[in-house]
Amino acid sequence: MDYKKYHAFKNHIYLIGFGSIGQGVLPLILRHFEVKPEQICIITADDRGRGEARSYGVPFFKTPLTRDNYRKLLGERLQKGDFVVNVSVDVSCVALIELCQEKGALYLDTVVEPWGGMYTDPNLTVAERSNYVLRESALELRPKYRGGPTAVICHGANPGIVGHFVKQALLDIAAGNNIAVEKPATREDWAALAQRLGIKAIHVAERDTQAAELRKQPGEFVNTWSIDGFYSEGRQPSELGWGTHEKALPADGQRHTFGCDSAIYLNRPGSATQVRSWTPKEGPYIGYLITHNESISIADYLTVRENGRVTYRPTCHYAYHPCDDAMLSLHEMNGRGGVLQPKQRLITDEVVTGSDELGVLLMGSAKGVYWFGSRLSIEETRRLAPYNNATSLQVTAAILGAMVWAIENPDRGVLEAEQLDFERIMEIASPYLGEVVGVWGDWNPLQNRSTLFPEDIDETDPWQFKNIRVTPPVAVVPAAKAKTAKPIASISYLSTAKNEDIDDTPPMPRRAKV
Amino acid sequence: MDYKKYHAFKNHIYLIGFGSIGQGVLPLILRHFEVKPEQICIITADDRGRGEARSYGVPFFKTPLTRDNYRKLLGERLQKGDFVVNVSVDVSCVALIELCQEKGALYLDTVVEPWGGMYTDPNLTVAERSNYVLRESALELRPKYRGGPTAVICHGANPGIVGHFVKQALLDIAAGNNIAVEKPATREDWAALAQRLGIKAIHVAERDTQAAELRKQPGEFVNTWSIDGFYSEGRQPSELGWGTHEKALPADGQRHTFGCDSAIYLNRPGSATQVRSWTPKEGPYIGYLITHNESISIADYLTVRENGRVTYRPTCHYAYHPCDDAMLSLHEMNGRGGVLQPKQRLITDEVVTGSDELGVLLMGSAKGVYWFGSRLSIEETRRLAPYNNATSLQVTAAILGAMVWAIENPDRGVLEAEQLDFERIMEIASPYLGEVVGVWGDWNPLQNRSTLFPEDIDETDPWQFKNIRVTPPVAVVPAAKAKTAKPIASISYLSTAKNEDIDDTPPMPRRAKV
Repeated sequence: MDYKKYHAFKNHIYLIGFGSIGQGVLPLILRHFEVKPEQICIITADDRGRGEARSYGVPFFKTPLTRDNYRKLLGERLQKGDFVVNVSVDVSCVALIELCQEKGALYLDTVVEPWGGMYTDPNLTVAERSNYVLRESALELRPKYRGGPTAVICHGANPGIVGHFVKQALLDIAAGNNIAVEKPATREDWAALAQRLGIKAIHVAERDTQAAELRKQPGEFVNTWSIDGFYSEGRQPSELGWGTHEKALPADGQRHTFGCDSAIYLNRPGSATQVRSWTPKEGPYIGYLITHNESISIADYLTVRENGRVTYRPTCHYAYHPCDDAMLSLHEMNGRGGVLQPKQRLITDEVVTGSDELGVLLMGSAKGVYWFGSRLSIEETRRLAPYNNATSLQVTAAILGAMVWAIENPDRGVLEAEQLDFERIMEIASPYLGEVVGVWGDWNPLQNRSTLFPEDIDETDPWQFKNIRVTPPVAVVPAAKAKTAKPIASISYLSTAKNEDIDDTPPMPRRAKV
Repeated sequence: MDYKKYHAFKNHIYLIGFGSIGQGVLPLILRHFEVKPEQICIITADDRGRGEARSYGVPFFKTPLTRDNYRKLLGERLQKGDFVVNVSVDVSCVALIELCQEKGALYLDTVVEPWGGMYTDPNLTVAERSNYVLRESALELRPKYRGGPTAVICHGANPGIVGHFVKQALLDIAAGNNIAVEKPATREDWAALAQRLGIKAIHVAERDTQAAELRKQPGEFVNTWSIDGFYSEGRQPSELGWGTHEKALPADGQRHTFGCDSAIYLNRPGSATQVRSWTPKEGPYIGYLITHNESISIADYLTVRENGRVTYRPTCHYAYHPCDDAMLSLHEMNGRGGVLQPKQRLITDEVVTGSDELGVLLMGSAKGVYWFGSRLSIEETRRLAPYNNATSLQVTAAILGAMVWAIENPDRGVLEAEQLDFERIMEIASPYLGEVVGVWGDWNPLQNRSTLFPEDIDETDPWQFKNIRVTPPVAVVPAAKAKTAKPIASISYLSTAKNEDIDDTPPMPRRAKV
């Protein structure tokens, strides 16, 4: 097959980390750049993927990068024009960006990762373990490195390409509501468009249905992507971009005391916070509100300010239904008091069925909700690229897109996904995203509510977060009015009918006495 | 194989309902009573099990019993000395008991079932859809039929044999704490023993790990026993026997206005109410607080009164971790707003792996928690009886035990499990229960709590229900104290080390420039 070569790359590409994403992106890099395997260097913490690296002839170094060794192991090798692709866990994004800026190298990651241990350090406050803090720590670098080598943070599937999905969805929603708009040119224009369309809430609405032959075993955590990564973010506080339409902060919600203020956090881990959402194929579902950078960055990007005062922002968060075995793994982990299971199994080649339906759900427009995203089956994934499942390919396609864009725009300093050219990225990534579609829906989170049990819901605005969130009633519910002090006689289901009116069911044959 | 024949049965046995339990109990009845297939009569609502009935030569009538036809279809056939085994759904327990009392027939069921529709009738109050009301409606019959034909209500696994497990556990706990006791002779004696041992809470702690080859499919509800039954009870309010040690009613909890007052209900379905519990094989886990008759009856049975005032009662409820596919089914059903999935699959012969660990967990004794129950694997089930999986065999063995006891004690009127001879029942059922064991544990629900997030827990008494229940924080949590207004610099994980102290990791080979 003759794949499009986007660029000839003359320097070195350092792949930091070689888990499911590193392994998945390598074939795409080799396929779409003019680059020799020897120009690539994998630096990773363990032996995973060593066979793949060998099969491609790519050098593989098993040496965990740490705060103490990264300047020697990576810094002494890094040269101007190189590209550092950080898809590791426990290696600081901020430290590597600073190193790249010093050396003149391009940089990309899929999460603002700190040095190891932060996510579950009980000596830090809940706020300090948030992605909000991590994002602010990366954004602090922006003024310092303006015009420096391009460093794209948080550009996988989500965070990452979902930011581009939001832009396409906004244009589609305008068209669907017969609102003529020009393609916005600036952040302010995009935010104004979202406001004009009445978008109150945005979910990253994802349903992964992939499965291996072998079911999750007791004491095992199974997932379609990094188990360390998922566990860590699941133990961080739930975080969400906090919309201007929200009437009240959740009882367990808090604002931060510094920074952009686009998001709040809950005093509660994401792995124990559930929300209602909707995707076209799954229909209504309950997912986890796991913290993600895009919840904060999209809400920040779409904020409208007038005279310094925030006048519009959508609520924005993840509503993640991981694959069934990961659901069971999360539940078991919660039952173990948040302690990760001793066994872990990341399923890539083992996946035999299912797809990943990953998109953005925009709520509040007059025409209804609109989901835009990627539906990628494992069968199509197998046809498209080796060493990937549907989940990883959605990530690695996005990485490929942002790498191409960074090479084409090499002096833009530190950037988030929302600041990249969404059409260019989509053009490069889409061939790997399966069916890329937008679908209208009439779902809202008040459907089928309060039929049997009283619920504390806001009927006047379906898009209040309190309606989205799955929460037990928190207030004392007024006593149910029993019809009598002893209601049994009044409940017809309990009465013993003795009427002689027999229905027309044919009588059973009368059996002879044995 | 030469099975023990407990009794020669001269009359007719009417099996009302022939789902998984009816199908599972039939071979045990034929095996352990001297009874001809023609003496048995199956009356059921659909075709399920028709092949099995034919293979045994047992008459099979597909005619749903209704309020309008039961007196004709069953009543006109029923004679003195017959036995009605009601393992149906939607057929009123109270109506059949009254019919049996009139006709002089023995009766047994595994749940106080109302006529169809009650569980999810939005015109009833939450209280009116409770098992408390159902149980009271059956207990009302007791004075009327004192000395009448024995009618055992709610005698499957749970409710049913778990009441006997509790008695054995109490004796074992006394022995384990070196407390010499005589076997209690009366209800009051059993309650006094539980009080003396300091039992504060009792869970029916069940973990089902059975699975078929074929995983749960989207839009499908999979379970190891009646899906109608599980769905219905899952949509009823959570209910629990309410202990005297509990300091405060849950915010969504309510007492009833009549009856024995041993239990409360939550304004919330059991399928959306989670609790922490423990079994020896599973360890700590999160299960569902699904309402069950035994939660109310065991708490009632173990109540101590002094001068009419309640001075002791344990909290008692179910902590059910159904099989993994049922967990996923419940979650999907909740996501669908409580609407049952269009496809259903009850797995019996299809089960290829797993076991049902079903027992009672008694909490509060000085020596620790004590779990007593049945661990039955699918492999052993296959050796023991046809037409069963582990879950159904735990139920059908209990039915067999209570049938034998009822035949031996035919004039005891309306009874719950706790009023039967637990040793006789255990003697008959145990050969079908796999490993019947008691295991001590040091678990309590405060382990691994509040490490990363503030929680509203009671450290002074682990056995408060508020510690057991999985609930988001309901109160506003005090603002986390950020160490600085802008804490990034103080978080070491975010700092970019520039020290020259390099660790002793061997350096990677220096690669030649390509």
